[in-house]
Amino acid sequence: MVPNEPDSVFEHGSLSRQALELVADRWAILILYALSLGTLRHGQLHRQIGGISQKMLTKTLRGLERDGLISRKVYPVVPPKVEYSLTPLGRDLMSPLSQLCIWAEEHIEEVKAARTDHDARKNET
Amino acid sequence: MVPNEPDSVFEHGSLSRQALELVADRWAILILYALSLGTLRHGQLHRQIGGISQKMLTKTLRGLERDGLISRKVYPVVPPKVEYSLTPLGRDLMSPLSQLCIWAEEHIEEVKAARTDHDARKNET
Repeated sequence: MVPNEPDSVFEHGSLSRQALELVADRWAILILYALSLGTLRHGQLHRQIGGISQKMLTKTLRGLERDGLISRKVYPVVPPKVEYSLTPLGRDLMSPLSQLCIWAEEHIEEVKAARTDHDARKNET
Repeated sequence: MVPNEPDSVFEHGSLSRQALELVADRWAILILYALSLGTLRHGQLHRQIGGISQKMLTKTLRGLERDGLISRKVYPVVPPKVEYSLTPLGRDLMSPLSQLCIWAEEHIEEVKAARTDHDARKNET
């Protein structure tokens, strides 16, 4: 990430910013993580990812497929069977993504303590 | 990230999910990154981060301060001078966050190629 260059993450609409927006999406991250554990169907993803709406799941799956991070396999059966899995590019992304999620999990207690402390100070004033 | 455990990222409202949501926010990431390069004032952040509204900047700064990732220093001068900088916890987060952003920057051309390919196939059918 190099600021002050023409293609900086700070520049709205730049390639770097697009790249950042690609990975800074909680639903995209959860879908990628679920698929990193194995191939899943739409209904299975919906059951696994708590709180996601059908509409948001469909929208995020389409975006990830367009970005080349997941692939969609349609089986010619009745009723139609559709399976999602990670592409090699999607699997490659899981490495830095996992590191970030591990950091977040390891430090969430510190964040919670900061919140409690912050809210207590706010109530004092 | 361990699925099927009580505190899994897949569980809506769980601690792990809260941790994920903490870092899966483009504006939070951009603010943290800008502050990793040095202390900044509100107006400087607004100028540096293209596309962010005043309202979103204020909201995200408050959230990051509450989470203990940035600190806010108010100088008793007229007009008031307020500076933001990373806390040690915020600085610690920059390591995995940078790795993710570097991945995104390094692979954005592959993503663009996948998009072009996807859109071309869509227009064929």
